[in-house]
Amino acid sequence: MPFEYLSNTPLDEAVSQYRNELRSQGLTYQVETIETRNALGRMSARAVYAKICAPHYNACAMDGIALISEKTYGATETTPVRLTEEDFTWVDTGDPLPKGCDSVIMIEDLVEDQGSHWIYSPAVPWQNIRQIGEDISAGDMIIPSFTRITPACMGAMLAAGVLRVEVIKKPLVAIIPTGEEIVPPTEDPGEGDVIEFNSTIFAGMLTEWGCNPKIYPIVSDNRGQIQKALQSASQECDAVILIAGSSAGRDDYSAQVIRETGQIVLHGIAIKPGKPAILAYINEPLKNRCVPVIGMPGYPVSGIIVMEMVFKPIIQLLTCQPSEKKPVMDAAVSRRINSSLKNREFIRTRIGWVNGKTVAVPLNRGAGVVSSFVKADGLMDIPQNSEGVEAGGSVKVRLLEEMEIIMKSLVITGSHDPLLDEAADILRREFPEAKVSSSHVGSMGCITALQRGEAHMGGIHLLDEETGTYNIPYLKKYFPKGNVVLIECVQRTQGIMTAKGNPKNIKGFDDIIGKEYVNRQKGSGTRILCDYLIKQNNLDMGKISGYQREEFTHTAVAAAIAAGTADAGLGILSAAKIYDLDFIPIADESYDLLVGQKEFELDIVKKFIEVLKSREFAERLNAMGGYKLNQPGRIIDWT
Amino acid sequence: MPFEYLSNTPLDEAVSQYRNELRSQGLTYQVETIETRNALGRMSARAVYAKICAPHYNACAMDGIALISEKTYGATETTPVRLTEEDFTWVDTGDPLPKGCDSVIMIEDLVEDQGSHWIYSPAVPWQNIRQIGEDISAGDMIIPSFTRITPACMGAMLAAGVLRVEVIKKPLVAIIPTGEEIVPPTEDPGEGDVIEFNSTIFAGMLTEWGCNPKIYPIVSDNRGQIQKALQSASQECDAVILIAGSSAGRDDYSAQVIRETGQIVLHGIAIKPGKPAILAYINEPLKNRCVPVIGMPGYPVSGIIVMEMVFKPIIQLLTCQPSEKKPVMDAAVSRRINSSLKNREFIRTRIGWVNGKTVAVPLNRGAGVVSSFVKADGLMDIPQNSEGVEAGGSVKVRLLEEMEIIMKSLVITGSHDPLLDEAADILRREFPEAKVSSSHVGSMGCITALQRGEAHMGGIHLLDEETGTYNIPYLKKYFPKGNVVLIECVQRTQGIMTAKGNPKNIKGFDDIIGKEYVNRQKGSGTRILCDYLIKQNNLDMGKISGYQREEFTHTAVAAAIAAGTADAGLGILSAAKIYDLDFIPIADESYDLLVGQKEFELDIVKKFIEVLKSREFAERLNAMGGYKLNQPGRIIDWT
Repeated sequence: MPFEYLSNTPLDEAVSQYRNELRSQGLTYQVETIETRNALGRMSARAVYAKICAPHYNACAMDGIALISEKTYGATETTPVRLTEEDFTWVDTGDPLPKGCDSVIMIEDLVEDQGSHWIYSPAVPWQNIRQIGEDISAGDMIIPSFTRITPACMGAMLAAGVLRVEVIKKPLVAIIPTGEEIVPPTEDPGEGDVIEFNSTIFAGMLTEWGCNPKIYPIVSDNRGQIQKALQSASQECDAVILIAGSSAGRDDYSAQVIRETGQIVLHGIAIKPGKPAILAYINEPLKNRCVPVIGMPGYPVSGIIVMEMVFKPIIQLLTCQPSEKKPVMDAAVSRRINSSLKNREFIRTRIGWVNGKTVAVPLNRGAGVVSSFVKADGLMDIPQNSEGVEAGGSVKVRLLEEMEIIMKSLVITGSHDPLLDEAADILRREFPEAKVSSSHVGSMGCITALQRGEAHMGGIHLLDEETGTYNIPYLKKYFPKGNVVLIECVQRTQGIMTAKGNPKNIKGFDDIIGKEYVNRQKGSGTRILCDYLIKQNNLDMGKISGYQREEFTHTAVAAAIAAGTADAGLGILSAAKIYDLDFIPIADESYDLLVGQKEFELDIVKKFIEVLKSREFAERLNAMGGYKLNQPGRIIDWT
Repeated sequence: MPFEYLSNTPLDEAVSQYRNELRSQGLTYQVETIETRNALGRMSARAVYAKICAPHYNACAMDGIALISEKTYGATETTPVRLTEEDFTWVDTGDPLPKGCDSVIMIEDLVEDQGSHWIYSPAVPWQNIRQIGEDISAGDMIIPSFTRITPACMGAMLAAGVLRVEVIKKPLVAIIPTGEEIVPPTEDPGEGDVIEFNSTIFAGMLTEWGCNPKIYPIVSDNRGQIQKALQSASQECDAVILIAGSSAGRDDYSAQVIRETGQIVLHGIAIKPGKPAILAYINEPLKNRCVPVIGMPGYPVSGIIVMEMVFKPIIQLLTCQPSEKKPVMDAAVSRRINSSLKNREFIRTRIGWVNGKTVAVPLNRGAGVVSSFVKADGLMDIPQNSEGVEAGGSVKVRLLEEMEIIMKSLVITGSHDPLLDEAADILRREFPEAKVSSSHVGSMGCITALQRGEAHMGGIHLLDEETGTYNIPYLKKYFPKGNVVLIECVQRTQGIMTAKGNPKNIKGFDDIIGKEYVNRQKGSGTRILCDYLIKQNNLDMGKISGYQREEFTHTAVAAAIAAGTADAGLGILSAAKIYDLDFIPIADESYDLLVGQKEFELDIVKKFIEVLKSREFAERLNAMGGYKLNQPGRIIDWT
């Protein structure tokens, strides 16, 4: 397979080059006529004109009587006018105005007295009449071209006799997953199987953009088969996404196949992730049009970025949907971000609004970490030719979440415990608008975040080596002004997790010598506990194999042990239980919540603390195991 | 039928009373399990946890070699380490990490030399490996309860082996239109037929809110039949909308039927439009739940307001969708608004952003004018106990359109001519994001709007009685500082429109005496022309029957004549042609565009003027008839 050098075209240039080339090849939208009642959310293909007037006749707008207004002239409170049955016609709302009448008097304004009807004020011509065309006159333009059809648009069109409407046809977009290691979604994949979920993500995005996605069966790494799939998709569909496997070699393979069938406009964009995207098209002479073909990198995060940044502007040529631009704002980045000069980088990030400051907490940058897109409130945009940003520096962020929701979110930054997710879920079930945005940066990370005013609260479990007590000694050191509130949360059991049946026969912490250990990141409470235990047991750090291997959560440590790539790791019982590991208890520790003093007054913080006191919280933690609840939610007097 | 007095409960009170009553009756959402790949846009019913790790094995993240990192220790640029084939395994991205290996070296970092492989820097343990659980660990909470499932959520769930997900069931909502005058949408309704389009509007709104609407056949005004429809709908569906006809009596009828089957919580809300809504429910013991039933007023605008303000918060109890609150802002109202102390009033309004000022131009307040909802950018909210607002006063407006789009919209306020709609459509076809927001307030209204800085431009055709010339004399009078630009638009023919075949044998303007005339509103150029013609022909205004009858557009005048409710009216040829009327030319006039001096520099104004010069504009006007184009788009030197 020939090695192909990728171009490093800047993003904006790549998109405009691709769009222009496709346009010059005649790429454009198609039109179809559908029933108006089925047109919700569709885009009008041309201006829509009223066929009839609405109302289409002069209609009485009130229940009452219709008459010629002249008959009422001169009526006043003191000189009422008497009407006889010959003078008027009884009408209901919606009735056609009877011939010869020019006004309607409400029934309430008519006084009946011994068979006569009296009125006390004159009628004005055309009062209480919905004149023909009051709403819409025949021939009026109801909506212009390229307008999203709303419920009211549908109503106005039907009122005006427009029963069918020309709309932009939804483009049919093919999604072809390739790769011999790729398997359809399953609960029980074999080792080396890669679950194919990119097509589902892309189909979802396309649906949101007004397309009809069509997912093709997985094609193995066979050039002929990929070729065949690409040809039939380009004949059948209006655009094609060819998802390469995750290997670099595979991308070249896609490029080769695409080149044999169509034209490559560009291969390689100066963005990260997403660099190896292939921007191409195939001319379909039989259909007399060109079909955009995009070769997608296989990693899901790269794929999502290329979909959003590159493919969406192309799809808009076919859907005529306006480009809703995601708002961009400035935020202070919570830690140093390194970036390469070569690429423009998009980094998924949590966004918090704390104390009037917008803070961006970068998420895992791995191209395979699709969950980061679930957590992300925004995409940090680090320009090409920038080496990155220092902690506290300002970055541009594209919002993926409504700023209104971000401004109301609770920002929790600190030590990880699954109980935070449980509490957040309980809160949300009671107040569906409450969003909790939590980042796992360890207990010391919590202290830093609160010192810098970048979080509302966070979990800490910090063992003081000298006193053997938790948390308070650290607060005295780091918050001498006393401007944080410590909230009791739980006592939890730390211990050594090891494979089911404890095959290495680990009985205490000193047994980790000679075994494969998996550690937690620096600054985490569990790491501090680990170092404390090493000292207490007089162990030689250098002799602990795997001391350098760092994971960020209890469950990640448990997963490594469950997978057999480590023999032991320190963590909490609830994590061990999820992975069905053996657990050797080592220490009980205080896992508490630290809250900024001002933040303590926030409504959402108060609600969160109420959750800690709730029965449901106790029940959920009981089911998870390894927690003791004394007085969760209590303010601990520490100053 | 007994007359029923309506309550006058304030809106917020009515909604909370209704919600609380329904909740105390046990109204709640239902849950269903669906395939994850079909879950786009649905709301999670409970927290979703990962079933497996993603990745579920330690995976090589690069193409290259896997080995134990120890073998590479000490490698530097000057002291490379030589690896033998036994030291490593060739791997591709995605391959499982071979047993006994702890790192992967990229193929690019491996130097091959005469059958040996050299590396120039040591491998760090766990480098280039996607560790098990890197993305998601089994047991992790992927999303909490009541979360909208995005494409990325679907991807994360599939990656974590979650193939099915519990979501909130979409409520099935019945819509029952009633009324003997109601007919299904048609292009050719009979006189007195009322086209039923409310159900389509409501169904569209419900779909947007995450419901499945079900439209029932139209039920005639027969109590037994309405009763039967209501019962079967409440058995079949999760909520019911009973649309009354437009008559006041009909509402009472609905109330009666509902009361016989269920409970009325409230009848009558202190809002306008929408007052006579009925808020009720039916207990369905067989289904062990309660079904909200809302009696909707028959006028579409009232219905939309009640749907949005009252029914949406009820539906949210069933969908668990967050209440996206429409942004509210202050705007200056363009003309005096009267309002009743008794009701809180919602007035549809155009919103323009001119010269940094937000201006609200109220639209037709008629409860039957559904087209106003197509044109509206916002809803003016006039509180109960307010008598209204003076022109220029500040009002609260709920935005129905993105402020970003409003800020880029071209605000045209002035004399009506269909050519404005055509020009706007041409502009939009070229620049789909260009929105034109035009209000018909007559030529004098244009002058006022520009004087007050409330519009970017407007159409004028103002005949000066003294000189017999158009527009310029008015500009000299009203803009002595010369701070407006006059743009030539068209010469158009005004004439008398009369029924096909000219049955009243009208030959000139003086023939309108003795006929039924239909006039235009004060301040419109056509009204000024009419008054000029009356004077010139020495006619007696008092003898013109229908002089007081005012319409706001040329097409509305034409519609009145076509319907036979008037014999003659002054208007332009294009309007007469739409209605197939006879047309007696009276005068050629200059219809020009007046633009504020600052506004003239705006990009959208320049683009609009370019449209006037385009061939497509000329072609469209030629097809409409009655226009002469000299140099449209030319700046007229008038100072």
